[in-house]
Amino acid sequence: MMTSLPFPVSEFDARLERTQASMCKAQLDALVLTTPANFRYFTGLDSQFWESPTRPWFLVIPASGPTIAIVPSIAEVVVNQCVAGSVETWPSPRPEDEGVSLLASVVNDRARRFGKVGFELGREFALRMPVLDFLRLRDLLTSEAVDGSPCIWEVRNIKSRAEIEKIRQAGQIVSRSFASVPEFAKLGVTEAQASRDLTVDILLRGAHTVPYVACASGPGGYDQIIARGSRRELRDGDVLIIDVGATIDGYFCDFDRNYAVGKISDDARRVHDAVWVATEVGINTARAGTKVRDLWKAMMEVLEGAGMRGNNVGRLGHGLGLQVTEPPSNSVADEAVLQPGMVITIEPGMEYEPGKMIVHEENITITEDGFADVLTVRAPREMWAIN
Amino acid sequence: MMTSLPFPVSEFDARLERTQASMCKAQLDALVLTTPANFRYFTGLDSQFWESPTRPWFLVIPASGPTIAIVPSIAEVVVNQCVAGSVETWPSPRPEDEGVSLLASVVNDRARRFGKVGFELGREFALRMPVLDFLRLRDLLTSEAVDGSPCIWEVRNIKSRAEIEKIRQAGQIVSRSFASVPEFAKLGVTEAQASRDLTVDILLRGAHTVPYVACASGPGGYDQIIARGSRRELRDGDVLIIDVGATIDGYFCDFDRNYAVGKISDDARRVHDAVWVATEVGINTARAGTKVRDLWKAMMEVLEGAGMRGNNVGRLGHGLGLQVTEPPSNSVADEAVLQPGMVITIEPGMEYEPGKMIVHEENITITEDGFADVLTVRAPREMWAIN
Repeated sequence: MMTSLPFPVSEFDARLERTQASMCKAQLDALVLTTPANFRYFTGLDSQFWESPTRPWFLVIPASGPTIAIVPSIAEVVVNQCVAGSVETWPSPRPEDEGVSLLASVVNDRARRFGKVGFELGREFALRMPVLDFLRLRDLLTSEAVDGSPCIWEVRNIKSRAEIEKIRQAGQIVSRSFASVPEFAKLGVTEAQASRDLTVDILLRGAHTVPYVACASGPGGYDQIIARGSRRELRDGDVLIIDVGATIDGYFCDFDRNYAVGKISDDARRVHDAVWVATEVGINTARAGTKVRDLWKAMMEVLEGAGMRGNNVGRLGHGLGLQVTEPPSNSVADEAVLQPGMVITIEPGMEYEPGKMIVHEENITITEDGFADVLTVRAPREMWAIN
Repeated sequence: MMTSLPFPVSEFDARLERTQASMCKAQLDALVLTTPANFRYFTGLDSQFWESPTRPWFLVIPASGPTIAIVPSIAEVVVNQCVAGSVETWPSPRPEDEGVSLLASVVNDRARRFGKVGFELGREFALRMPVLDFLRLRDLLTSEAVDGSPCIWEVRNIKSRAEIEKIRQAGQIVSRSFASVPEFAKLGVTEAQASRDLTVDILLRGAHTVPYVACASGPGGYDQIIARGSRRELRDGDVLIIDVGATIDGYFCDFDRNYAVGKISDDARRVHDAVWVATEVGINTARAGTKVRDLWKAMMEVLEGAGMRGNNVGRLGHGLGLQVTEPPSNSVADEAVLQPGMVITIEPGMEYEPGKMIVHEENITITEDGFADVLTVRAPREMWAIN
């Protein structure tokens, strides 16, 4: 009944060591983690129990030595089968003290060197505990509660080869499923049916979960890319987009494909070609040492040359891993520089007429040699046809 | 390309009206919402974009009048197709001011009567924005930021008939899928395969999403109920449990089924019968006016009579709706009293030998007449057999 760990223990040891080095630089005595992705990153836990917000879970990363999991009683057996130095529990649910005093005592008992404890307070994190409990916890701590998110992202942003292979595996599975969409999505099928059948296909090909499926369609393009598929039926002249985040051992691929339904307009074909070319430019620009803002600029040149009116997405790609989106953002405002081990999406999109948008996406990693390795099966330059 | 609303607009109007009445009692000038379930409750939005933590979304419920959605630019089109009085946007991602100043100005511009604004700070909520941004927002507000969660739960805990029918629909679909498990889960099949095939079956029968699948197995029982299915193969003498949270229009059913693999021990049969009987007692005890702690006690009597050693779950059921778990907890510590329109799980479980647990679960609602209406298809008293 052992939980099957997705990586050798040495992988988890290396993560802990890198994190503790980062914490030392940031002068943190401990890091307290509450979110599913961070808990999984350090322990290997595979559970969807996070869907239930009743009980918080805590993982304490000390300045040195093994982690301490502080979890509700229902989680004890499972966490003992994962990677954690020790496990402490409280009887839960107990809303009047849902792990808060136990966590405070464990953190306060640790050696203090800097007087600062990091929490997931910043970018791309939402602390997974009631804010009232966090504020109470902060009062109970003898150290200062500070933002630990830069420490976490510094480590998680650089993936190991084993992590990258998980993302590649997800990307390859979903690529095959995307190629099979014309077999089940026909003229008259609804967006919802196409999305459902694609989800089933992805599961049957071996992805573990499919937490993200967005779908949109419209004549020559679509006006948004984030809603779930509706009851709208596919019509002649539509461009259909499906965007999927599917996981292997928690690691996401995140990319989309566009389909030409019946006979589409020349403008739509031209714009799809432009976003395909912009993707190609993105892949070829992404190198170790490239600033993400320069990556953004290189793609923007292609899109603007093709008559881009706007792009409400606000960026042309982002990091991914145990979250479907992670830092950085491929945008003019992001300071990040690409490094070996980073995994990002290349996601150029453009609106070419009011309400008509086409967005393309692939997933890449920066290799040790400094080049981009495409983790998805590159989309064909011509959209797949649906008839 | 209109988002298909799952309810008539009058349903959303009624929710808003009840919430504003609750806010008046709690002396709140506004309520600011950030979580997927609350956003969906008031707007009807169907999107899995919440998987991406880059951008917060805000919905302001004023003391009177229509709601104001304050969302990142990528969400504008979709939210305009939902139920919201007005929509304001900011260009996002913009980590240095991710909607915070815009939200503050909208809230500060509203009439102030009590000087208090509610946020999702309490029970069963994790605020979906970086805590640093919340603290900054709190400083920008001219009113006091207080806990608005009791207001929200007072309203969401009482479901309309239309909401209950969504949960029933999910429960009926998953009941049929559970009955078909012996067709694909055989001796030697892994927990992971059984879970995957069940998920596919549920999607093909019409559920919209299956965000929660937990699976465990072991000789005569299992030692936990929250991990995802592992590579463990089903063996003669095992009891297999699968616990599913699946949705229709966002509304969860949440229940489990147990299966006898080959020939199981008499003890396991006896304990399954005890938890089945405890469920029956739970269903018959749940009435309008019943305290959930008395519901808990009635079930505990049966379990203790059957030799219960413990139950690390900490409660014998919980509320459900747009979240797989909502208040109340069926436990000795919860003050809640059952009322018509509440939907809860009846979930007795017991460990009868170290590492051997059996847990059962059904979903019920309290009717206008004050009785329990079972929303799932009641499990047979004898476990289904897997061979």
